[in-house]
Amino acid sequence: MKKHNFNAGPSILPQFTLEKTAEAVIELGSTGLSVMSISHRSKEFTAIIQEAKSLVKELMDIPDGYGILFLGGGASLQFAMVPYNLLNRKAAYLNTGSWASKAIKEAGLFGEVVVVASSKDKNFNYIPTGYVIPQDADYFHITTNNTIYGTEMKSDPDSQVPLVADMSSDIFSRPVDISKYGLIYAGAQKNLGPAGVTLVIVREDILGRFERPIPSMLNYKIHVENESLYNTPPVLPIYSSLQTLIWLKNQGGLSAIQRVNEKKARLLYEEIERNRLFKCTVENPGDRSIMNVCFVMNEEYQELENSFLEFASSRGMAGIKGHRSVGGFRASLYNALPEESVLALIEAMNDFEKSN
Amino acid sequence: MKKHNFNAGPSILPQFTLEKTAEAVIELGSTGLSVMSISHRSKEFTAIIQEAKSLVKELMDIPDGYGILFLGGGASLQFAMVPYNLLNRKAAYLNTGSWASKAIKEAGLFGEVVVVASSKDKNFNYIPTGYVIPQDADYFHITTNNTIYGTEMKSDPDSQVPLVADMSSDIFSRPVDISKYGLIYAGAQKNLGPAGVTLVIVREDILGRFERPIPSMLNYKIHVENESLYNTPPVLPIYSSLQTLIWLKNQGGLSAIQRVNEKKARLLYEEIERNRLFKCTVENPGDRSIMNVCFVMNEEYQELENSFLEFASSRGMAGIKGHRSVGGFRASLYNALPEESVLALIEAMNDFEKSN
Repeated sequence: MKKHNFNAGPSILPQFTLEKTAEAVIELGSTGLSVMSISHRSKEFTAIIQEAKSLVKELMDIPDGYGILFLGGGASLQFAMVPYNLLNRKAAYLNTGSWASKAIKEAGLFGEVVVVASSKDKNFNYIPTGYVIPQDADYFHITTNNTIYGTEMKSDPDSQVPLVADMSSDIFSRPVDISKYGLIYAGAQKNLGPAGVTLVIVREDILGRFERPIPSMLNYKIHVENESLYNTPPVLPIYSSLQTLIWLKNQGGLSAIQRVNEKKARLLYEEIERNRLFKCTVENPGDRSIMNVCFVMNEEYQELENSFLEFASSRGMAGIKGHRSVGGFRASLYNALPEESVLALIEAMNDFEKSN
Repeated sequence: MKKHNFNAGPSILPQFTLEKTAEAVIELGSTGLSVMSISHRSKEFTAIIQEAKSLVKELMDIPDGYGILFLGGGASLQFAMVPYNLLNRKAAYLNTGSWASKAIKEAGLFGEVVVVASSKDKNFNYIPTGYVIPQDADYFHITTNNTIYGTEMKSDPDSQVPLVADMSSDIFSRPVDISKYGLIYAGAQKNLGPAGVTLVIVREDILGRFERPIPSMLNYKIHVENESLYNTPPVLPIYSSLQTLIWLKNQGGLSAIQRVNEKKARLLYEEIERNRLFKCTVENPGDRSIMNVCFVMNEEYQELENSFLEFASSRGMAGIKGHRSVGGFRASLYNALPEESVLALIEAMNDFEKSN
């Protein structure tokens, strides 16, 4: 049975991406070679990575002056690379969840870290506001979407110091005002491709502003100068990511996918509000993530949690168990998740309510 | 036309690996999900990474006390991770080529580096001997096979300090005496899987011997404690690597593949010696790589270089152009390259000789 894949990441990818990837694993075009067996210096791979960069640039409307990198190592490696390259004396961070907390911890190895605000007091179930960014900070770091807690910053904040964003779980879900950002990074395994590649978009003029010996593989300047080919990049994950970018352009780009995403999320949040069994963990509707919808059983129905998980599973729902930090349920509604999967989940919630 | 794939890396993988990977990209077993869309915390992926570790352990005969890691970032990231974790005051390196030189450069950021010997004087066309390893070095680093220059250390050297080896291009090509090594690393993209994952085998007791703040993603201890699941690992490249490990076991393991590899290399080196047009760049037969056979036109036939490349290409040979540092030709004969490809290359060399 084909599943409704609500996994938080690695997560659902377009069928187009799966089919194109499977084809190329056997043979890339008519090269006589697998995409796993071509040189990263070949004209075939050069065309692949150039097209992927062009599509990122086009879809996100990125002006000249930004480097677009496809790096190995995962977004967690960026938690260290960002301060290695950018933290001279002091950095400001907004703490909105587990990933932000990890980023803060890594930055602490490189200099002073000011946490401008945190929502830890309420188990990260809201996005703090009214904080002040120190004007002498080297940069201000945010996590735009918090996969575990289901909160999201839905607009691009203003910052007088370079804005650095971990967009791992909501990149490509809506248009962003790129001019507001100094650096954006995102592990591929939500809206882009398979785990194993991380997209980095960096305004080149924020690099090299101070002296620190940086290992070559952690040095953004070296990757920018070598156009992601300083070492052998993750060829297959990049090829798959390119297929998703092509698919996304065919969907009409970021404004079009945003409308689809907002509708999917609205339908599900409405059902949670309507259904007497469930409630949202994020109280403020403005803070609720479009990508990861977190909900739990209402107090009086707590004992039904496992039976709803089993019921949903019997209807083909995969990956809706909530993260242990929050409990309950989490439905991740990434770009590639079709509306029919959301409708199937809503129907399951509805039917479960009737029988309880 | 199906190609004879002599690429130096990313390079040929077994047809078994390609087919199993393509299948799993569409659907992993009967899970209803692509291998690219399963959680790295799922029971399916746990089984995949555990089986991959067990097979590495079995094939290389690794005793307890060694951590076996599948990391992102490429072997080039190991050039920095090794000294980050192991270089307290002084490290010893053997310089046998471009990759060794890069490893030496990165280590220099972390402490004193002693180059015990170098073959740079002869464009790295031999493996130095008779060097002395300082007894107060924190470790001794070697590159067992030099992909660019076609030299290889075919036996495991003795070292009284922990031995660290970059085995990116000859791991799994022959049995090694693991007890001689403190740490082995290898980018997957030669004998293991697609680019995007690096295998690290580390004797746990050499870790944590001194204090240095290490970013989590660069800290071997953290990866060992989390069994390669500190962050989202490169799921698809690991799945493909597992298929190659299964294939390798079915070939009879490392002793069996060594016999096949030695025969393939012997046949090609014999043809180079016999053929009046060509000569080896590595003079000492004992230093000649079993994995990467480098050869050039004899002086009097230099002008035929491009026409041999075209001739070989017309016979379906891919990737035999030598690296720019050496020129001429390079035929990489990794585990998955069938003997028939070597015989086809030899026939092409033979036919080209007759017509010139």
